[in-house]
Amino acid sequence: MNGAETLVETLLASGVNVCFANPGTSEMHFVHALDQHPEMRCILCLFEGGVSGAADGYFRMKGEVAATLLHLAPGFGNAFANLHNARKAQSGVLNIMGDHADYHLRFEAPLKGDTVGVAQAVSHWTRVCSAANRVAVDAADAIQVARSKGGQIATLILPANTAWEEATSFAVAPPAPTLRRPSQAEVKAAANALRQPGAILLIEGPALFTDLGLVAKRLTKACGARLMQPYFASRFRMGAGAVKIERMAYRLPDNQKLLAGAPALVLCGTARPAGFFAYPGLPSTPDDPDTRLIELCSREMDIEWTLRALAAELGEAELTAEDFVPSDIPKQAEGPLTLAKVGVSIAALMPHDTVIVDEGVSSSAHLGAALERGPGHDVLTITGGSIGFGLPCAVGAAVACPERKVVVLEGDGSGMYTLQSLWTMAREGLDVTTVILANRGYQILRLELAAMGVNKVGRNAQRMFDVEGPSLDWVALAKGHGVQAVQVSDMAGFNAAFAEAMGQRGPRLIEVLC
Amino acid sequence: MNGAETLVETLLASGVNVCFANPGTSEMHFVHALDQHPEMRCILCLFEGGVSGAADGYFRMKGEVAATLLHLAPGFGNAFANLHNARKAQSGVLNIMGDHADYHLRFEAPLKGDTVGVAQAVSHWTRVCSAANRVAVDAADAIQVARSKGGQIATLILPANTAWEEATSFAVAPPAPTLRRPSQAEVKAAANALRQPGAILLIEGPALFTDLGLVAKRLTKACGARLMQPYFASRFRMGAGAVKIERMAYRLPDNQKLLAGAPALVLCGTARPAGFFAYPGLPSTPDDPDTRLIELCSREMDIEWTLRALAAELGEAELTAEDFVPSDIPKQAEGPLTLAKVGVSIAALMPHDTVIVDEGVSSSAHLGAALERGPGHDVLTITGGSIGFGLPCAVGAAVACPERKVVVLEGDGSGMYTLQSLWTMAREGLDVTTVILANRGYQILRLELAAMGVNKVGRNAQRMFDVEGPSLDWVALAKGHGVQAVQVSDMAGFNAAFAEAMGQRGPRLIEVLC
Repeated sequence: MNGAETLVETLLASGVNVCFANPGTSEMHFVHALDQHPEMRCILCLFEGGVSGAADGYFRMKGEVAATLLHLAPGFGNAFANLHNARKAQSGVLNIMGDHADYHLRFEAPLKGDTVGVAQAVSHWTRVCSAANRVAVDAADAIQVARSKGGQIATLILPANTAWEEATSFAVAPPAPTLRRPSQAEVKAAANALRQPGAILLIEGPALFTDLGLVAKRLTKACGARLMQPYFASRFRMGAGAVKIERMAYRLPDNQKLLAGAPALVLCGTARPAGFFAYPGLPSTPDDPDTRLIELCSREMDIEWTLRALAAELGEAELTAEDFVPSDIPKQAEGPLTLAKVGVSIAALMPHDTVIVDEGVSSSAHLGAALERGPGHDVLTITGGSIGFGLPCAVGAAVACPERKVVVLEGDGSGMYTLQSLWTMAREGLDVTTVILANRGYQILRLELAAMGVNKVGRNAQRMFDVEGPSLDWVALAKGHGVQAVQVSDMAGFNAAFAEAMGQRGPRLIEVLC
Repeated sequence: MNGAETLVETLLASGVNVCFANPGTSEMHFVHALDQHPEMRCILCLFEGGVSGAADGYFRMKGEVAATLLHLAPGFGNAFANLHNARKAQSGVLNIMGDHADYHLRFEAPLKGDTVGVAQAVSHWTRVCSAANRVAVDAADAIQVARSKGGQIATLILPANTAWEEATSFAVAPPAPTLRRPSQAEVKAAANALRQPGAILLIEGPALFTDLGLVAKRLTKACGARLMQPYFASRFRMGAGAVKIERMAYRLPDNQKLLAGAPALVLCGTARPAGFFAYPGLPSTPDDPDTRLIELCSREMDIEWTLRALAAELGEAELTAEDFVPSDIPKQAEGPLTLAKVGVSIAALMPHDTVIVDEGVSSSAHLGAALERGPGHDVLTITGGSIGFGLPCAVGAAVACPERKVVVLEGDGSGMYTLQSLWTMAREGLDVTTVILANRGYQILRLELAAMGVNKVGRNAQRMFDVEGPSLDWVALAKGHGVQAVQVSDMAGFNAAFAEAMGQRGPRLIEVLC
């Protein structure tokens, strides 16, 4: 048995049985070891950003850590952006990065690079394995770390000789350590603060998509506090039957209005809200300077225990129909195409329990209100703000939930960063419908420049904002990856294409000219 | 005047007038400043790997530093792999990375990340600008660093407030410091070593594509030494009229044979050769243990001075026709398609002074011998071994040399990493012909697994090596990016398509089923 074999056996013995992979030439011993274990599901992505984004989506929907298999330094670099998004989503991801044999590193081989440096820049935990007979234990530690504190990025660097040299046996990941909890006194103080009229409880994490949301709703109803969630959350429930939770906005001034006048803002499972960016003359944070900020329970702590402890203090009011989003499924929209109407038709046509991966960027704001009228569904958002998240995340979500329909709302600018994920959808037969909202440019940049007060745009800016001359042809791009696609420019076309996609299984793409 | 404006003026005043860009929302002030200066050529890439690869190709062909405009942490991560290749090519690149306003960094904004960590992992020099009135000086320093030691990666991180706050004036980059030289005694010792029969002078850098190669050839001819170059060089001359220089091989055992028995191996402008990877039972380096290794002049030192100093010691023999590659342009190959024949037809049809960007990976070995028979041309190779280099590098080369034809030899696996560069070729009307050598998989991985002695491949390995089920359709992918394309499966088809591409200007793609 060699180190690579103990790695694969350790993963399997510890319950990690999905591996998103883009192996390079330094990972051949792992590939060979994976070959001996068909019970490990290996999913090939044609670019490393597809690998890391898929592991993120998988964790968000399954709550389980997947492994990634990545090539040394620059390969990990390609995975970096979606690891950033995963980190901000608090997804647990286990990265296996190959490296040169340790004795080879003193020479200038082409692929020699700063594996530790690039890994540490985005990982909670990074370790270089020192010997073949340490691979199993290091991998078990890495799995434990990835499962700790609600989910972390763990990166294990395996020099090639630790893969091919002799090792003795596999290991099993120890259970994640107990989550830290706030003190009872802190809970009491937060409960008292929430009793003040207009106080806000801001939550994130499992309370946004599990029955824990009921607890949060009951306790805020009992004390009269507002219940809110961040705009970018890793996963939340929306549509008919969802617990009513106020969602914060994208823009800082909108959030300032939402939070104005609250005597207290209690955070549970989330960090202090901050502006997506800073702007001259605006504060970094939207909360009212007169508001008392109570950081009760950070994302890494025991959110469930904390909410139940708050409920024990404040009581739990009985919920009634008005506490849930009513079923108000709209009819398909007709006529000339608008983003709002696309939202209406998606709400009309998507099945219950659809998973919506939202990387519509500027377009999503126009769709969002309509989607709330749809059947109950989960939404995954771009928590780290790094575009190229949508298609890979959808791959992971579809692997995690093969029985559910996955719909990606994707910008044409953002979709281009990781379009290779379309191929993985085709190869794995994933039930993903990609809706490209093609505004032929980086609309968000136009908006941000306007937010600076600049309304006249010259040639250099124009050519950096517009993705035109030539326009992208997403139908051809999809076909090139083996995914069936259609372009639509009116609601009749959209309705027909989306209804067909909802009625069948497998990947397809709809390019919406908007 | 604000910091962003002083940046753009500093770049222009220092002779940096091309900017490959993929700006994000944190770089809006720079975009606005660029808008005021149409003399700065801004070239949009739809993915950051396209940006960094283009800056690399630009430097290789023009010898001048281009700026990149990149988004904070994860955006830089996307650029990482091609910065790695650029670093290994010793290309000078100036990265401008935006970041949050410095006072915003204490909050958990979505895009907050380890900008310094990811930059340092691949840059020779990284600095965070501390104030608007420091932007100009920092940028001037960065340009100087990028131009130093033959070419380096310099990354300047500009917090958003340094862009929008008041600044006084621009600066001009100081000249790069004088290159270090070996001592006269070291030159004498190297010259003596080269006088031994069978000694080898291994060169890289400008001697491979400028008249300096004549000096190297004359001095080795004078003393009877062999003149060699590494397999992966950033740029070298090949074909009719090129100085004859022995090229090392890809595989370590082949290089062991090439270098066996040499009494001395003198390095000038290059590092000690090392295996692409280590393999069990093989050494890391191909040079004979009995060979005296003389590291006379590293890549960062004064290569020109050193070669001339060697020539002064050894004399310069007159060169004759046999010292140059003869003109032996073949006829187009006919019949069933093979890689070797594709090479023959390219040699037959490409014009003089074509720039060949070689990312054919395993396929290139089959093409290479034929290309040597073509007219004189430059070759750019994947110096860092990180795939996804070819298409972006071609963008940069074509921007640098608008009057020359650029031909990319691209694998179908490797091409997928940065296929977005096709769009930039279309938008800028670049004269690039992309030849996709479509073997429908990662052939190099199959070879590497075989090199481990594994000949039986199971389902997991098979599915990680093959890019099939579905096959990629490169004609559709090219069309999606606005590039005209054709698929060929025999030599008649290839000859017609390639002749047409050579006869016209502008981007096109030929998918070769092989």
